[in-house]
Formats: sequence, structure tokens, C-alpha cells
Amino acid sequence: MARLLVLNGPNLNLLGTREPERYGHRTLDEVIHDLRAAFPGHTIDHLQSNLEGELVTAVQQADGRYDGVVLNAGGYTHTSVALRDAIAAVRTPVVEVHLTNLLAREPFRHVSLTGAVCRGSIMGLGADGYRLAVLHLLGVGPSKAEASS
Amino acid sequence: MARLLVLNGPNLNLLGTREPERYGHRTLDEVIHDLRAAFPGHTIDHLQSNLEGELVTAVQQADGRYDGVVLNAGGYTHTSVALRDAIAAVRTPVVEVHLTNLLAREPFRHVSLTGAVCRGSIMGLGADGYRLAVLHLLGVGPSKAEASS
Amino acid sequence: MARLLVLNGPNLNLLGTREPERYGHRTLDEVIHDLRAAFPGHTIDHLQSNLEGELVTAVQQADGRYDGVVLNAGGYTHTSVALRDAIAAVRTPVVEVHLTNLLAREPFRHVSLTGAVCRGSIMGLGADGYRLAVLHLLGVGPSKAEASS
Amino acid sequence: MARLLVLNGPNLNLLGTREPERYGHRTLDEVIHDLRAAFPGHTIDHLQSNLEGELVTAVQQADGRYDGVVLNAGGYTHTSVALRDAIAAVRTPVVEVHLTNLLAREPFRHVSLTGAVCRGSIMGLGADGYRLAVLHLLGVGPSKAEASS
Amino acid sequence: MARLLVLNGPNLNLLGTREPERYGHRTLDEVIHDLRAAFPGHTIDHLQSNLEGELVTAVQQADGRYDGVVLNAGGYTHTSVALRDAIAAVRTPVVEVHLTNLLAREPFRHVSLTGAVCRGSIMGLGADGYRLAVLHLLGVGPSKAEASS
Amino acid sequence: MARLLVLNGPNLNLLGTREPERYGHRTLDEVIHDLRAAFPGHTIDHLQSNLEGELVTAVQQADGRYDGVVLNAGGYTHTSVALRDAIAAVRTPVVEVHLTNLLAREPFRHVSLTGAVCRGSIMGLGADGYRLAVLHLLGVGPSKAEASS
Amino acid sequence: MARLLVLNGPNLNLLGTREPERYGHRTLDEVIHDLRAAFPGHTIDHLQSNLEGELVTAVQQADGRYDGVVLNAGGYTHTSVALRDAIAAVRTPVVEVHLTNLLAREPFRHVSLTGAVCRGSIMGLGADGYRLAVLHLLGVGPSKAEASS
Amino acid sequence: MARLLVLNGPNLNLLGTREPERYGHRTLDEVIHDLRAAFPGHTIDHLQSNLEGELVTAVQQADGRYDGVVLNAGGYTHTSVALRDAIAAVRTPVVEVHLTNLLAREPFRHVSLTGAVCRGSIMGLGADGYRLAVLHLLGVGPSKAEASS
Amino acid sequence: MARLLVLNGPNLNLLGTREPERYGHRTLDEVIHDLRAAFPGHTIDHLQSNLEGELVTAVQQADGRYDGVVLNAGGYTHTSVALRDAIAAVRTPVVEVHLTNLLAREPFRHVSLTGAVCRGSIMGLGADGYRLAVLHLLGVGPSKAEASS
Amino acid sequence: MARLLVLNGPNLNLLGTREPERYGHRTLDEVIHDLRAAFPGHTIDHLQSNLEGELVTAVQQADGRYDGVVLNAGGYTHTSVALRDAIAAVRTPVVEVHLTNLLAREPFRHVSLTGAVCRGSIMGLGADGYRLAVLHLLGVGPSKAEASS
Amino acid sequence: MARLLVLNGPNLNLLGTREPERYGHRTLDEVIHDLRAAFPGHTIDHLQSNLEGELVTAVQQADGRYDGVVLNAGGYTHTSVALRDAIAAVRTPVVEVHLTNLLAREPFRHVSLTGAVCRGSIMGLGADGYRLAVLHLLGVGPSKAEASS
Amino acid sequence: MARLLVLNGPNLNLLGTREPERYGHRTLDEVIHDLRAAFPGHTIDHLQSNLEGELVTAVQQADGRYDGVVLNAGGYTHTSVALRDAIAAVRTPVVEVHLTNLLAREPFRHVSLTGAVCRGSIMGLGADGYRLAVLHLLGVGPSKAEASS
Repeated sequence: MARLLVLNGPNLNLLGTREPERYGHRTLDEVIHDLRAAFPGHTIDHLQSNLEGELVTAVQQADGRYDGVVLNAGGYTHTSVALRDAIAAVRTPVVEVHLTNLLAREPFRHVSLTGAVCRGSIMGLGADGYRLAVLHLLGVGPSKAEASS
Repeated sequence: MARLLVLNGPNLNLLGTREPERYGHRTLDEVIHDLRAAFPGHTIDHLQSNLEGELVTAVQQADGRYDGVVLNAGGYTHTSVALRDAIAAVRTPVVEVHLTNLLAREPFRHVSLTGAVCRGSIMGLGADGYRLAVLHLLGVGPSKAEASS
Repeated sequence: MARLLVLNGPNLNLLGTREPERYGHRTLDEVIHDLRAAFPGHTIDHLQSNLEGELVTAVQQADGRYDGVVLNAGGYTHTSVALRDAIAAVRTPVVEVHLTNLLAREPFRHVSLTGAVCRGSIMGLGADGYRLAVLHLLGVGPSKAEASS
Repeated sequence: MARLLVLNGPNLNLLGTREPERYGHRTLDEVIHDLRAAFPGHTIDHLQSNLEGELVTAVQQADGRYDGVVLNAGGYTHTSVALRDAIAAVRTPVVEVHLTNLLAREPFRHVSLTGAVCRGSIMGLGADGYRLAVLHLLGVGPSKAEASS
Repeated sequence: MARLLVLNGPNLNLLGTREPERYGHRTLDEVIHDLRAAFPGHTIDHLQSNLEGELVTAVQQADGRYDGVVLNAGGYTHTSVALRDAIAAVRTPVVEVHLTNLLAREPFRHVSLTGAVCRGSIMGLGADGYRLAVLHLLGVGPSKAEASS
Repeated sequence: MARLLVLNGPNLNLLGTREPERYGHRTLDEVIHDLRAAFPGHTIDHLQSNLEGELVTAVQQADGRYDGVVLNAGGYTHTSVALRDAIAAVRTPVVEVHLTNLLAREPFRHVSLTGAVCRGSIMGLGADGYRLAVLHLLGVGPSKAEASS
Repeated sequence: MARLLVLNGPNLNLLGTREPERYGHRTLDEVIHDLRAAFPGHTIDHLQSNLEGELVTAVQQADGRYDGVVLNAGGYTHTSVALRDAIAAVRTPVVEVHLTNLLAREPFRHVSLTGAVCRGSIMGLGADGYRLAVLHLLGVGPSKAEASS
Repeated sequence: MARLLVLNGPNLNLLGTREPERYGHRTLDEVIHDLRAAFPGHTIDHLQSNLEGELVTAVQQADGRYDGVVLNAGGYTHTSVALRDAIAAVRTPVVEVHLTNLLAREPFRHVSLTGAVCRGSIMGLGADGYRLAVLHLLGVGPSKAEASS
Repeated sequence: MARLLVLNGPNLNLLGTREPERYGHRTLDEVIHDLRAAFPGHTIDHLQSNLEGELVTAVQQADGRYDGVVLNAGGYTHTSVALRDAIAAVRTPVVEVHLTNLLAREPFRHVSLTGAVCRGSIMGLGADGYRLAVLHLLGVGPSKAEASS
Repeated sequence: MARLLVLNGPNLNLLGTREPERYGHRTLDEVIHDLRAAFPGHTIDHLQSNLEGELVTAVQQADGRYDGVVLNAGGYTHTSVALRDAIAAVRTPVVEVHLTNLLAREPFRHVSLTGAVCRGSIMGLGADGYRLAVLHLLGVGPSKAEASS
Repeated sequence: MARLLVLNGPNLNLLGTREPERYGHRTLDEVIHDLRAAFPGHTIDHLQSNLEGELVTAVQQADGRYDGVVLNAGGYTHTSVALRDAIAAVRTPVVEVHLTNLLAREPFRHVSLTGAVCRGSIMGLGADGYRLAVLHLLGVGPSKAEASS
Repeated sequence: MARLLVLNGPNLNLLGTREPERYGHRTLDEVIHDLRAAFPGHTIDHLQSNLEGELVTAVQQADGRYDGVVLNAGGYTHTSVALRDAIAAVRTPVVEVHLTNLLAREPFRHVSLTGAVCRGSIMGLGADGYRLAVLHLLGVGPSKAEASS
């Protein structure tokens, strides 16, 4: 059984209401609920915060407590050296997820400070990105993931 | 009767003491007091915070609760994608105010991340900018504003 | 009684017909008419020109003749060092107005040569920007403005 | 019968004498004469001006009066936001012509402010560019163009 | 049963021998074999080419023939407008995969011409990226993917 | 009788189906057919290729075999130094054609590597650009073009 | 006896465990303990926070309460206009310290927003930088520093 | 006897009143008067205009009428391709004069479009620059200049 | 006896006819013939291609088959990440040769994508560059090179 | 007993007379005298030179002869690759000192070529920077530094 | 009687032989001889050096010894912060002279580090620039200059 | 018999001791000795200097005295306009040599001021670059080089 942390940054608490044609109609609670349902044998903790420093602290504290972190840092993706430093400082693998295809949006979203120190990134695939990130962190094929629970 | 939120970002709590020749001699309390006095029939709530995430949350929560937001994001104007995303996510109109003329200062203050998603901006007119922003949000001429209270 | 000059640059003579969904449906004549009606006790002169040099001359001649200038330099905002120099050369306060939110448009409109030497700027608030600029130049609250006429 | 306006900007009045190895040996009068001769059944008006604002006004006034504009804005191509705004504001199609291949000249000539809002551009083909632009605006094949006169 | 095309660009034929500590020890044949084994009920075609134009043609021809394309354009990711145009021209969804985390490598790899017109991207997760891309294109959860075969 | 080569680069084989509202509804075959019909007395050969190197070779081989080349290099316009070098190496005049107004699209399309070494460019006039380019290369007025066949 | 504030920003709480070959093996507690031991006659308060806004507030409140501030703003050094404004707003001298030589690291660490408004900076000298900064703020030679305690 | 044209651009009509500590206390009339007095045997015509196009025309018409032009293009120095083209088109030598040292002012004044096509430039030497430019154009030593009158 | 591959990119097949004053009067065949004659005891294979992908493949296949590669990638030098990746992927040493001094030409030729992963570069020395590259790869002095054959 | 070299670059010989409000009133001789007095048990050699090459030579020769170098390279800090290479080539630790806070001055002073290869930098603390650099190089606390002499 | 220093930088000792069509046919000795002859009553000392540091020293030592410096810093104009600092440090007025019009040459010559701290600059007027600079420094009209000797 | 000058810039006197894994283990004396031994019939003079101005002078004096110059300008390659001007001023051919592949190092080493005016460059081939440069300057094949001695 794996223990994972899903970490969501600023404005992701608005999921389902903020520009639903872009971000989808399901709320963050529903997205997390679906995720836990898809991986019943694993512990998936969740934290959402609008504060950069709280996300920094959460990444720091994930070290040694979780087998992996799925991080959607929202707007801090593009501006937070502090979050980047936290990710680089921990040994827990971090996979970055973005709901939208950042390359198809404003230029300032093309720059990522946090991405370079994550293991990898998944973007543009909507809420499905969380599922794929978890699958990767479990390091197993679909059937094995279910078996391992 | 309208309901407005005035939102001030980092260091605006120092108003009246920080470089008064640049920012003026009245404190933030006095500025807000004057503003409420100028628009007696309206509710003008006020929040000042040095934390980016608290401002993000305040903008989010203004949606549906206020008829308009007057925002002076201080230093976060130039660096906060998170705040920009929050403004873009709410339907309440937001008018940006800056006490000083940012174009006459350091180049990094010429760039505004939040401005592009506000309805408009007023800058360089000192604390009078707050009054003008409120007037605009009330959407009425001077006499009507008084009448509508 | 104050004496103000409203100065409009290139293409503002098209107001009401040029992209009305962006610039509004009222013509420039109507906008100026409304403005004079809103401030009955004051003299509000108006000049529109498509020629950069005529605007330069108008700003120069405003010095000592007007108590303030409301300037919408249109396309010259972004390209005219000559106009910038004229504004910097006169003592009459100049407030810049833009009907649209320039930060939400093409990048070359984010750069302002004239803005840095104006007292301040109001943008994105449509024709209401002219009214707010006049209010600021009168330096009085709504009621006082009426009283002073 | 179509009604077209050929609009030439600064220094094109020097045609035939200014760097003839680059711009050709025929004067502007001769070029316009040839153009009218090539399209006998159509009205081709012509205006040359060294003043940016006069060109702005000419483009504005072409709206509804002409079926198309052939514009060689000369040096204003690279610097005039005002002219760009005028072109964007009118419904008459505007085709940009440059006698020389701007990409083979100084870098500041590679940037075009006006081109993006024209229907299209023809450059590097000398005075023949005017003929091709007229042909396009007539929207007909060579034989039809003659027939339509 | 779905029909997918996996398309690999230049140098991916060297997989398993080229910098194995960076790209992994399995050859491209093995990776494709594993992929087909993981999704037994689906058709997964594969093409690798070092020629930009062949990849352009392959993307064009996928339109209407495949339910989705998994594309690792290798070095053409950063330089090919032609490939970008092909992706934008077809209706078949394309998901981009990169074995390594491009943001952790040379700056010229941070720029992606193709990414902006793909549905999304997965990078830094090694050959597992292909599996996740297929899973997304199948649009189903792990168990459903198996069931649908 | 003149002998011309029309050379089309990547994705132009999709003409008529790819974003027809942008590129028009006629297929490449129809466009070439129309072109030949418009200039009955002349030989107009045509080649389309998605491969940069094939276009390079075609330009090289046009030298001495054709009286002119009409080139729409598609995506290679912006990225191919090889194609630029080929154009510069041959004496046959080359006129560049683009269906759309590149200046009104993404910034990376504003840069042209090939344009600087062509005789000139025509862009934004749709498939009519091919006709105008041929007319220019024939170096004659509409009636003469027909007569010369 | 002097009263100093040592202020540490995000991730400095990880000192001793985060990349010890780069940042050293002593924990933040140990570093502060050593610092107090080195200057026994002086009060050295300490605050570490991952939140930008808390650091802003701490700098504001240092004004008039401390004789100097030693600031290691961590990742906020490069991104925080808010922190810069706070430093500029207080009269207490602030000396910036960085454990590593930022110029020998990633380019985004070469830019400092806060440095320009500090009295000076010490970087690359490890935890010894704190000691040197305190020595400078005490404004005395080594022996005097001991004597003054 | 030589015939020279002194050409002054926008805002130079304010000389003596505009920032006198920067531009000097003598008016433009006085400067021109002094200049004529210093070179009694020569004809020195003078034109000042705030309109870019009038300056373009003046430079064009100087060709063949004057032995040299002394040009202070004011703000158009930095923005006028049209004026640059006019200078490049005439054979009369043009010497550029700036009253102030542009390199010691705002960055946008460091760029000169007109300077590259003038024979040379004199800047930072105040109104004395006009005298030196005339001396150079007369092409003689001080004593000869007097003798030649 | 050594086995070397000389690899020439686009347009080098035009050697001797393309701008001979820049690239020399000898054809590529003659250059290769001379090269083989100068090193009689060694095998020097040669491939020229205008296709980027063919060059990529050739570099890949040189691995283990040749003792060294002399590469003149022509226009792909500046644009091909694919070729760069191929060079980086093989163990055979590659020396880059350019006939002309790229630094004395257009700025886009100053950037080299391939050069950084080659062992070294020789440029500006005409066809003699090939000879020097071979000499270096043979790793011997002039006399030894002859002796080793 | 340690042996240190203090190396001062161009214009530092003017210390005490050059802009004393910026650089202080003590001459370079006095500064060095104070420094030696503060560390009586150690040898502190000093060299000042206006010649870049002499500073390069001095750094080279410090290798093996000194336990550390305190370098204030003056204007060469921003322009000398040669000096950077010398610092990188020696094993003796070098600490860079700048009297003023370079980040608060002209932008070209923000770039440091030498800093990246020094152990660290101290700037903005006036002549006290030399003392702190020596203290660091001695690698001891204040009291130990005295004891070790 | 005035005392002036003419200071020439690297490669100006080649005057008369180096590209004479650009720099003129008179040697540096002849130029200086002419200059002294033109101002017989004044002392004009001259120093030419290829060493940056010697020029720095010469500028430093001019302070208090000369009434003005005429400086042609040659290549150091564009690269020497050290020379700039020396000019800024002395009170003697320095006028910069360049024989050629730097704006008409390579872009790296458009940037001047030294110019901003000189009183002014004269460029493009050949060796006559030295004469004009001296005339300005003497601060007198042509006749007075002779009279004052 | 030819007469050549080998000119080495700053820090090349450290050859053999400075980062030998990068620059090789042979000292500069040994490299020059080998070079002379390889070309016994020719005169090869050698000068190494850390002073930019001395290198400038050496290049100037090579004109007419040497048949060619082999120049390794070290750090001045990237910063010296003065050296560039000297190379451009002499007729003696200059070939630039760099021991390392500059493109594989820091970005500031990618820019070369001197390279554009040399005949050509050889880099990345270690000390063998000197031999190849001499061979090229002798303008003969290996056997002829020996014969000519």
C-alpha cells in the first residue's frame, strides 16, 4: 500500500466554478473523491492552499512521510523559487500536473520554475492528469495497481 | 445601496509613515475613513494583508458578496500569477488602484500581471484613486451616487 | 471656476463608429457634451487632432492657460517622444486617459512613452475615465465640484 | 467600375530621384499615370503626404468612399500605431505595398505595425506592386479586369 | 477497440544504446512491444523516422485513420513549424511524450513549437510516458481499458 | 512562352481541408489547375513536398530550367537556413507567396529566413497570391501576358 | 548592547539536511546558537518563515525595535517586490546574507530584487556570512565587539 | 558665401523656458541670432516645427538649395524612420546636434534613427553645438571662416 | 589505416558554382578527390545530402564503422537539434568544418546547435578545412600521416 | 600566521578623493594601514593597478604564495574574462569586495564576470568589506583571529 | 592661455595607414601638429596608448593639471568601465571625439560606456572633431580663441 | 621560408598547470617547442602577454614583418574591440586558435569579437590547433610543408 500526497495551489479550490469550459465541471472535492475511488488500496492525502509558504511547508513535510507527491502549484508554478527549492530539497518524487496545456496560453505561463526539479510533468489532460501521475508514482501497470491494494 | 470591498496588499499598512513625500501623510485608517465618509449610503469593507494567499482568498470570496472590488495589490501587482488567476476567476468587477505613477519608477514596476484582468486601472493620483475607483464602480455621476445611498 | 483642456489624439474622432463593442457607442461630440454637462460651472475646451505635432503644440500652449489637461493621446501614447517632451516641459498637470485596458491588448500597447511624465493615468473605464480625470483635476469631492462652479 | 485610393507616405514624392538603383527611375507621377492607364475603366485617386496625421485622416475618410486602398506608408510602416489604428477602424480593404524587399534591409524595417491589420502585403516587386495590389482589389482575373471597365 | 499511432522522431531508434542512464536500457522495439502487451485489445501502430517531412506526412495521414496519436518528435519538437502545422491541421487528438524532463536540460529544449497544438504533454517519466498517453487517449480508467479490449 | 515552377512546402497538400476558413476551400490541385488556365500559353510545373531537403533540391534544379519560381515554403519559411541558402545560390528569380497574412498570426511566423533572399513576397491575399506572383514573373501587363502565350 | 534580528526565509529551516555539501551540515538552530555564542553581550532574535507575507511583516516590525536586521530571504530574494518594499520602508539597516555564491548557480538566482535596497550583501561564505553581517552591524572591530558585550 | 539651413524639431521652440538648468536660458530666437552674428558673411536660414512631416519636407527641399543642414530633430531623433529616409535621400550634408548628452539620459534616448545617416553628430555641448556644426560645414578653420564671409 | 567519413549537408553539392568568390571554384567532387589524394593510405568515404534526416541517419551509422567524421552540416548547423542529438549519441569523434567565417556573415549563422557537441570546429579556411580536420583526426604530424598509409 | 594579498583594481587609488560621499573619505593607504593594524600577526600585502593584465598576473602569482586574496577589481569586475580565467585557474581562495552596493547603481554594474569564480562576495559595506573578507579568509572567530597571530 | 590634453586610445597610432578611406590620410602626428598650429597660444599635450590602464591613469592625472581633455578612446569606448569610472572621478571636463559615425557601423559600436560621463561627444566629422572639441573647451568664439592666445 | 608569429593572450602562460584535464598537460614552452620542431624550415616567433594593449601593439607590428599570425587571444577574444580593430587594420592574415570548444562552455564564451575579422578559426582541438593553423598559413599540403623548409 502506497501513501501519496496530492497538493493543490492557489485557485484550485475554485475548480468546477472557475471557467468550467477550460478547467472542467467537477469540483476539487469530486476530483479527489474520484481519485481515491480509482486507487482504493492506497492512501491519498490532499491539501489545497492559496499560500505559497504553506505549500513550501507541505512539500518539506512530505519528505519521509509520503511515497510520492502530485503537485499542481497553480500560479506559483511560474513565480515561486521558494517552492522550487523545497521540491529540490526533498527525496520524495514529485510529479507536476497542470489541467490545461500551458503552452497554448499566455507566454508567462510557458515558464516554469518548479518543473525543472520535479521528476516530470503532465499537462493539458484535465483532471485525468492526477490519475496518470498517481499511476506513474505507483510504478505499476493498471492491473498491478489494483492488485497492490 | 452598493457593497464594495477595498483590498490593500503588502506594505500599505505603512501608509502615512513610509516615504510620506511619495505616498502621502494620511494613514491607511484615515484613507479608509475618508472613503466611507465620502460615500455614506454604501457599505465599504476593507482588508489589508501582507500575504499573497490571503489576498487571493479575499478576491475569491468577494464573488457574489460584493458589487465591486477596489484593489491595490502593492508589490504583488508585479509578481503574482495567483492573484491574477483569482481576479480572472470571479465575476465581480475589480478596479486596480496605485497611489504612485508606476511608469515613473523602476522598470520592474512597469510590468503588471494583475492589471490585464482587471476592468481598469487608476494610478499616480494618490489616495484620490480610491475615491475615483469607487465612483466608477457605483456607475453613476456624482450627484446620483449620493442619491443612491 | 476651473479651465481645463481635453485633448484627444488620432482616431478618437471615430468614437462611436470604430469598434463600438470596444470603444462604446457614443460619439466624441456626445462624450464631450456629457462632460461639459457634468461640470457646468467649469470651462472645458476640447481639441482632437490626428497630427502628432498639433498635439505637441496644444500641450505647449496649455501652459499657463489651463488648470489641467486631460489627454488621450491614442496611438501616439506608445510612439511619441515629442509629445512626452512637451508634457514634461509644461507645469500644467496632465492626466492620461485610455478608454480601453491597454494591458489586455497587444504588447506594443503596454509600453507608454507619455505616461511616465503625466501626473497619473486612468485606463479601461471607458468614457467614464474623462469624468474621473476632470474630478481629480478639480481636486474636490463630488459635492464640492458642483459647489465650486 | 471600381473606385480605389492609392495612398503614399513620406519620401515617396522623391521617387525617381531618391536612390534610383533601389527605388527605380520613374517618378511618382509617372507611376500613378501608368497605373491609371493600366486600369482605364476604374477611378484611381492618389494622395501623397509626409505627415502621419494626414495619412491617418485619409484612411479614415476612405471608409465608404472607396472600394479599396493601396497603401505604401513609407517610414510610418514601422512606427505608426496611429495609422495602424485607422486601418483597423475602417471596413474598406487595405493592401500594403513596399517597393523594396524590407527583409533584405535594416532590421528596423523588418518590423511592421501597419501590416498586421491590412488584408495583405506585396513587397520587393518595385512599382509593379501597385499594379498587383489593384488587380487583387478588383478581385478579378486579368481579362475580367479589362472587361469590367 | 481503439486504433492508435505511436510516432517517434529522430534518434529514438537509438533507444537503449544512446545515453542509457538518461533514456533507459530498453530498445525502441522493446518499448513498443511492452506497450502492445499492456493494451492487448487495441491496435497500436508504430512509425519511427529521422525525417521531419515523413513525420509531417504521418501526422497528416493519421487523420481519420486513428483514434489518437502518441508523438515523441525528438529534436523536431523545438524546431519544426511544419510538424506543428500538421498537428494543428488534423482532428485526431495528439498527446506529446518526452522521455526526459526537458526543463532540466539545455534552454533550447525548453521551447516547444509542437506542444502548443497538442492536446497535452507528458514528460520526464521515461518510457512510462507512452503508457500514460495511451491510457489517456483510451479515455478510460485502468479497469475499463482492459474491459474494452 | 515562359516556363515557371510553383513550389509548395509542407501541409499545402492539405489545402481545402485544413482550416478552410483560413486557407480557403479550393484544393491544391484546383488552385494549380486555375493557375494554368489563367496563363494558357505558359508552362507551369508544380511540386509539393513535406521534406525540407526535397524543396532545397527543387530550388537548386530550377536554376537554368525555369524562368522563375513561385515558392510557398509553408512552415520552412521560418526555420530553414538550408532553403534560404538554395534560393540565394540560384539565379532564377524566386517570388515568395503566403496565403495568410503572417503578421496577423503567431510571432514566430513574423520571422522569415527565406524572404530576405527572394525577389519579393506577396502575403495575405489567399490563392490569388500565386496569380499575382506569376504575373510579376511574366513581367508584363494583363493583356500582354495573354498575348505572349 | 545591540539588539539584532536574524530573519531567515523559505527552506532555511532545512539547513543541515538539504544538500549539505552545498549548504553545510549544521542545522539552523546550531547556526543561530553559534551566532549568539559569538556575540554574548548582544540580543540576537531569530525568525524563520516560509511565508513571504510573514517576512514582510517581520521587516516592518523591526523598525525601531532592532538596531539591524540580518536577512537571508532564500527564494524570495529573487521574486519578492513586497519584501523589497518593506526593506525600503524601514530605517533599520538590513544586511543581506546568502550561504552560497548565487552567481555560480542558475541565472534566475543572479537577479536580486531585495539586494538593491539593503545596505549591502555577503554571499558565498556559508554560515560565516551571518557572523560577518553581525560584525558589520555592530560597527566595530573584532576586539571592540567583544568589549562591548 | 555659404547657405545653410538650421532645422529644429519639436519642443525646441520652448528653449529658454523648458527646464533651463538642462537646456540653457537663451531662447531659440536668441540662439539663432547669435549664430547669424557669429557667421556674418553666410546665409543661415532657420525653421522650427513640431510636425514630423514638415521636417521631412524641409530636409527634402534643402537638397540643392543649401550647402549644409544643421538638424536638431528633438524627439523625432529616436522615432522617425521617415526623417531618416529623407536625410538619406538628399545629397546635402546634414550634421545632427543635440543640446544635452543623450547617453546620460533615459535609455530610449540612446537610440538614434536619424544619426546613422547624418554625416556626424555633436551632443552635450549645449547651444555651442550649433556653432561647431556650422564651423564644420563651412569646412574651414576659424580664421578662414571669418575671411570667407 | 584509418577509416573516415566526410559528411556534407545541404547546398554543398553546388560547390564551385554557388558564389565561387565566397566558396571557391572547385566542385565538391574535386574537393573530395583532392582529399583522398592527400591521404592515400586511408579510406575516406563521402556522403552529401540535402535532407536533415539522412544526415542524422548517416551520423548514427558512423558509430563503430568509422574512426572519425568530418561534418559540414551547411544550413542545418544553425537549426538542427536532431543532428545535434545524433552527434551527441555516437562515440565516433566529429569535427565540424565550415568553408566560410560564419562570424563575418549574418547573425543567424553565429549560432551553432551542432558545434557544441562536436570535438571542435574549423571555419573560414575554405576547403583546406577538410584537410586540417582529417589531419587532426589522424592524430599525427604531417610526416607521420604519410608514413601511416 | 597567515599571508594574504589585497588586490585593488582601477581607480581605487583615488579612494578618499573620488566621490567621497559614495566611497568614503579615507585614502587607500589609510584603508590598508587600518587593515594591517587590525590583524597585527598576519602579513597583508597590497597591490593596486589600473592595468587589467597586471591584475591577471598578480592573481596568477598569488597561487602558492598567499593563503588568500581579497580582490576589489573595480571596473574590471564587469568586463574582464581574462581576470575571471585567472581566478578560476588558481587554488588560492579569492573573496571579492565592493565598497558600494552594485545592485543600487547602473545596470551594467549588476553583471559580474569575476564573482562567479570567487569563493564569495561582500558588497555595499564600504571599507569594512576588506576587514570582513580577511576575517573570513582567516577562518576563525574574532578572538581566534587575534590569538592566531 | 589654456592647457589641454588630447588623449588617443588603441589603434589611433595607425592613423593615416589604417583604412584611410574611412579614417583619413593624415597621420596622428600630422593631426596633432595641425591642432597645435590652429591654437598657437595654448598648450596642447598629447598621449596615445594601446593600454586601457594607461588611459585610466592619464585621465586621473589630468585632474587639476589640465583645463580640459579631448578623448578618443577607440575600442575602449565600448568596453571600458574602468575608463568610465576615471572620467567620472575627475572634475576636468572631458569631450569625447570619434573620427567616424559610430551609428553607421557595427551594432557593438553603438554602445558607449564612456560617453555618458563625458560632457559631450562629437563624432563622424573626421579629424575636424578634435578642432571642434578644443574650440568648445576654450569656450570662446573663433576670433576670441585666437585673441586669447 | 615563412615567418610566422604565434601570439598568446592572458592565462596561456599557465598552460600545463591550469585545469590540465581541459587544457592539456604540456606547458606553453613545450607547445611552442613542438611547433618549431614540426616546422624546422620556418621562423616561428612567440609572444605571450596578459595585457590587452601589448597584444594590440603586437598585432599592429606584425604587419609587414610576418607572413601570418596565429592568435589565441584567451579571455580578450570575448571583450576586446581594441584587438579586433588591430586585426582589421593589418594585412597579415590572422588565424584564431582556441584550445577548447568554446561552444561547449559558458554562454559569454560563445561571443567572439575578434573572430569576425580573422581569416578563420580553429577551436576545440587542443594544442593541435596551433599546428593546423600554421599548416594553413603555409598554404601547402603536408609534404610540401616539409619540402619548403
